[in-house]
Amino acid sequence: MSHDLDLLFRPRSVAIIGASDKNPWTRIAARTLQDVGFAGPLHLVNRRGTPALGLETITSCAEAEGIDAAFIAVPAVALGDAIEDMAAAGVRYGAVVTSGFAETGGEGAAEQARLFDRARALGVTLLGPNSLGFTNFVDRVSVGAMPLKLPVLERPRVGLVSQSGATTVLIAQLAHQQNVALSHMVAMGNEAVIDLADVIRFLVEDEATKAIAVFAESIRRPDAFAAAARAAAEARKPIVMLKVGTGELTATVAQAHTGALVGDDKVFQAVCDAYNIVRVGSLEDLAITADMLAAIGPVDPARGFSLISISGGACEIVADRGEEVGIEFPPFGTETLAKLSGVIADFGAAHNPIDITGASMSRPAIYSGVMEAVGADPAIGLIGVIQEIPASEAAASPMSEAALSEVARGFGLAGVPGMVIQQVLKPITDHGRAVIARHGLPLVTGGMDHAVRAIGHLYQWSRRVAQTLPRPVPAALEVPPELVGEHATLAWLATRGVPVIPQKVARSRAEAVAAAAAIGGAVALKILSPDIQHKTEVGGVLLGLEGEAAVGDGFDRIIANVKRARSAAAIDGILVSPMRRAGTELIVGVARDEAWGLVLAVGLGGVLVELLQDTQLRVLPVSPAEARDMVGRLKGAKLLMGYRGAPAADLDRLAEAIAAIGEAALVLGDRLDALEINPLRVDGAEIEALDALLVWRHAG
Amino acid sequence: MSHDLDLLFRPRSVAIIGASDKNPWTRIAARTLQDVGFAGPLHLVNRRGTPALGLETITSCAEAEGIDAAFIAVPAVALGDAIEDMAAAGVRYGAVVTSGFAETGGEGAAEQARLFDRARALGVTLLGPNSLGFTNFVDRVSVGAMPLKLPVLERPRVGLVSQSGATTVLIAQLAHQQNVALSHMVAMGNEAVIDLADVIRFLVEDEATKAIAVFAESIRRPDAFAAAARAAAEARKPIVMLKVGTGELTATVAQAHTGALVGDDKVFQAVCDAYNIVRVGSLEDLAITADMLAAIGPVDPARGFSLISISGGACEIVADRGEEVGIEFPPFGTETLAKLSGVIADFGAAHNPIDITGASMSRPAIYSGVMEAVGADPAIGLIGVIQEIPASEAAASPMSEAALSEVARGFGLAGVPGMVIQQVLKPITDHGRAVIARHGLPLVTGGMDHAVRAIGHLYQWSRRVAQTLPRPVPAALEVPPELVGEHATLAWLATRGVPVIPQKVARSRAEAVAAAAAIGGAVALKILSPDIQHKTEVGGVLLGLEGEAAVGDGFDRIIANVKRARSAAAIDGILVSPMRRAGTELIVGVARDEAWGLVLAVGLGGVLVELLQDTQLRVLPVSPAEARDMVGRLKGAKLLMGYRGAPAADLDRLAEAIAAIGEAALVLGDRLDALEINPLRVDGAEIEALDALLVWRHAG
Repeated sequence: MSHDLDLLFRPRSVAIIGASDKNPWTRIAARTLQDVGFAGPLHLVNRRGTPALGLETITSCAEAEGIDAAFIAVPAVALGDAIEDMAAAGVRYGAVVTSGFAETGGEGAAEQARLFDRARALGVTLLGPNSLGFTNFVDRVSVGAMPLKLPVLERPRVGLVSQSGATTVLIAQLAHQQNVALSHMVAMGNEAVIDLADVIRFLVEDEATKAIAVFAESIRRPDAFAAAARAAAEARKPIVMLKVGTGELTATVAQAHTGALVGDDKVFQAVCDAYNIVRVGSLEDLAITADMLAAIGPVDPARGFSLISISGGACEIVADRGEEVGIEFPPFGTETLAKLSGVIADFGAAHNPIDITGASMSRPAIYSGVMEAVGADPAIGLIGVIQEIPASEAAASPMSEAALSEVARGFGLAGVPGMVIQQVLKPITDHGRAVIARHGLPLVTGGMDHAVRAIGHLYQWSRRVAQTLPRPVPAALEVPPELVGEHATLAWLATRGVPVIPQKVARSRAEAVAAAAAIGGAVALKILSPDIQHKTEVGGVLLGLEGEAAVGDGFDRIIANVKRARSAAAIDGILVSPMRRAGTELIVGVARDEAWGLVLAVGLGGVLVELLQDTQLRVLPVSPAEARDMVGRLKGAKLLMGYRGAPAADLDRLAEAIAAIGEAALVLGDRLDALEINPLRVDGAEIEALDALLVWRHAG
Repeated sequence: MSHDLDLLFRPRSVAIIGASDKNPWTRIAARTLQDVGFAGPLHLVNRRGTPALGLETITSCAEAEGIDAAFIAVPAVALGDAIEDMAAAGVRYGAVVTSGFAETGGEGAAEQARLFDRARALGVTLLGPNSLGFTNFVDRVSVGAMPLKLPVLERPRVGLVSQSGATTVLIAQLAHQQNVALSHMVAMGNEAVIDLADVIRFLVEDEATKAIAVFAESIRRPDAFAAAARAAAEARKPIVMLKVGTGELTATVAQAHTGALVGDDKVFQAVCDAYNIVRVGSLEDLAITADMLAAIGPVDPARGFSLISISGGACEIVADRGEEVGIEFPPFGTETLAKLSGVIADFGAAHNPIDITGASMSRPAIYSGVMEAVGADPAIGLIGVIQEIPASEAAASPMSEAALSEVARGFGLAGVPGMVIQQVLKPITDHGRAVIARHGLPLVTGGMDHAVRAIGHLYQWSRRVAQTLPRPVPAALEVPPELVGEHATLAWLATRGVPVIPQKVARSRAEAVAAAAAIGGAVALKILSPDIQHKTEVGGVLLGLEGEAAVGDGFDRIIANVKRARSAAAIDGILVSPMRRAGTELIVGVARDEAWGLVLAVGLGGVLVELLQDTQLRVLPVSPAEARDMVGRLKGAKLLMGYRGAPAADLDRLAEAIAAIGEAALVLGDRLDALEINPLRVDGAEIEALDALLVWRHAG
């Protein structure tokens, strides 16, 4: 279900239920409201009416008016009453910190289900239980109890949502340390009603939020998550995600604990690829990448990156690491080089990344001059300047002030987006924040290592933003119930636009000879029987037959072989198809993932796919552009590009064929379990499915 | 050359040459001596005897006695005089900050060579020029001018040496921020005399230094570097290195600048593999990894790692990332599980990494109890505990104090080495340092992301510590000058212990027939001519011949073919060898790298090596154990393990064959340019070189 969570996340009036001096959660909740500067009415609810936290209390929500949302910190046994009270008073939203439910096992889960079903029936929508709630830094309100004090930073723009409460706090602290301004931070808790997908949807619609940072342990509702991810992609609002449980060890442990099969991470990666979700591997990368994407937004993927630094070492580190993550550092154009030599005399061989040398310490105008020249280069679309932000008055100097002033001016002149990069990961202090604000600097990020990975993600995300989203899933069609076996499957695939090898069914020796003559050249014969899957094993395949006698004898031999091996098998005839010279063989398969639905896999046949698992996955539907992208990402892609004198594959036609296979699988609908084309033969522009296997979900 | 740098790096008396109030370098140099607590005599040398930096000056080193080392900060034109003055006064060591030499191009390089050759002739050994010098935190002395103020930390143990002055300062600041106690920091400058290898050798011998952190741009003397790296490996003192210029872009730029070909990074990696040098990709990883290796030293690679945390999210992040870098998290033994359930009641399914849950907040003894139980598990050899170190009094709490106290106690009880890991990368403040000291905590590191990579390196380095070092290079032998061509090469390789296919030389049709009969079964015939390299092109190869007539006719046909195609070619006969059924084919090559000497490459034939560059490199010599390691690291290694029903290769014999090829290449000595065995055929225990190509350095 999808929820309108506006009143939950932007309440004008807040209650704390269970408020008491002895209840630390309620103390933190009240203090957080104060810290964040909440200006609306706050009501403390205490069953006995005992004053708490230095304020008067009420005994029921009904004693106050217009409470939009409540923070509920009552003992587990009192949660039912609290919900009834909220409902009676018309309080429709809340966050429940109370623990002791699903996270403790079966009994707790049952009690959780009972209470939250009741809440739902009463029209009360709750975050949690076992949730630290949330803080909304944009509207300066909190319904939660995260034990940390964070000032509201300027330009809040990163929405943080996490399935681990402790980790929410940790990421928020880290974000503050790195001057990453959060718009919201939301700790999901047990997700009895509101889940990750709901919060992502809210953040997609929130105007202040420019990027969504997600710490995820498990996706409870894949469909809802995919829909929320699609909404984010349509809004061009990046989701940056750190997902745990991707390794074998964590997956095994999770399975042992919850009994739930953790989905294959390769499939989840395919989902992320489909919806342009950026995946990172560390908490630092989560905060820094989300901040960069929020600050910069999509860049022109056709225009590369330029780094400007006073340190040659920094230039080399960024170039080395940047190359690894696919950042382009275009060489400067002639015009740019001329401008640069006007800025610094001995800049004859200026190259990107550009080392502006120690000269810029005595002549800081070199910064702005170089930035202006580089920004005007049509090959450059993004600029990074290595510069340290002083952490204290003592660390500042007239030299660093002058440099920062010229850097700020340079961003104005450059005409392309940019950022300041500190060389190593270190805190941006309050003093540093003031320096940034005073100079009007854009994004300040770092260290180089994290910044480079984030820039790599920024470009990758921007490239995908430019691509079309997967089309919505086409409606399932009625398919003939007799659609079974190679021949029927290939024939049906042909009607769906999949190029397939011509096949003729011969029911007699004479028909086989005639079919072969019509085809011309050598042919292959294969038994056609609904009862036989492995044709070769029963002597049901003969290859390279040419001429009336060979084909006719072949027909007879196959029939005899099959009758001998499988006397009971029904024989529908023999398939006659042309022999093809060896080309490159692909395996294109569609399989159903229990969580994510149909997943398309593309691999190169032979040792590459068997030994190196060189396959690319995407959740369906897949457009031809995506299919082409999949092929390009195969490690063995060069095999298709004219390897060893073989003709280069027509990649457009190949992409269309792969996309058509995906579409065909989709229209087969819910009954489909798997569809495999093996091989899809590629020989220059000749692309054909040579064999197909279709598996229905329920036998028959 | 190798230098005894003891007096340079541990001077008891220091001079600053060029001292003047207007010379900022000398001001910084004097202040650094004060900051570091230098207790010995300091002499300021000023040509005119003008007082400087608030002190009297002398006009020549000769006016003082017993100066061990000098910091030289005179203008470039005065450097020659300063050197003469030092020599005359018997000052034998110094660091030259003066710039304007090789880093400015050809003229500067010539002047540098002139001055430093003269210094060498005078017995004066200098660091630099263009060097910020060094600080020695162990002996509390500095001959340098790094613009930063660092207190001396406890237990200085990481020696830092860097080829970039700015980066030295940056890494030192970072190290201080992360509580990484440097023993020395050395900025190399232009390396006119003393180079990286010399400083590494000094640090290998320095007792306080437990690990060596290197920031490198280029290796000037590969032989000396390899010798220093060998010395470090023999001393089991890890070298951790961040080397820039590894990417295509930086290599191209460096080449354009210096005209020097930057070595292939794959070859440099092979050197690092040989001498157990740990390579990292970021400044943060450099400091954190070196610190961990210094603090912990080699661990038992057979015993895995256990993480203990109050946060399930942290456990999962560490498990996921740890798996990626090859860290083993062994499951706990039955005895351990029993002990753990004694520590926490509901620990039935405790697993590694171990989430000790929020219960440990109210009962901190859980920490030490769990650590003791886990440390006693024979499968565990290293423990990490996630715990935050408070940055200030305000951030501390009775709860965190109690937890830290129990963690410290736990390390005492665990009986295995361990560390505290902070979850994200954040500074360890002076307050934090005091907390660490008060509790007597071992290594405190973090964040998790960096710590996990460092632990991965620690295990990898420890595994290699356990392996034997490459043996010294065997002496080159006299080899027959006629050693040229496939047959002679294979025959000679056979004398060196390389298994080769039997070959007989037939000089007549009759000899060919007799040879084939002696071999039995089908044979291959190949032309034997010193003038023909590509035998197939001239019709010089026939395969699968069996029987007198076929072999005899084949002999005649090849002779006729070759005479037709190459009438001038000398024909020494025809090689007769048995036909072999297809096996797995390896390519084993030895090629000379201009910097590093002979490098052995092993790859699997076919698409894997051609398309995916699936090769492993090592510098020679290579032991059979290393050769086996190389084979195991091939992506396609499974092809040798009994793939698709093929017999599994005898990997021990294969490793011996590869090592023998490497040894053979070494004894061929300096004249060898390349030796390629293609293919080395592997069919179960049958391993044979089928063809060999030998290329001498100078024609003939």
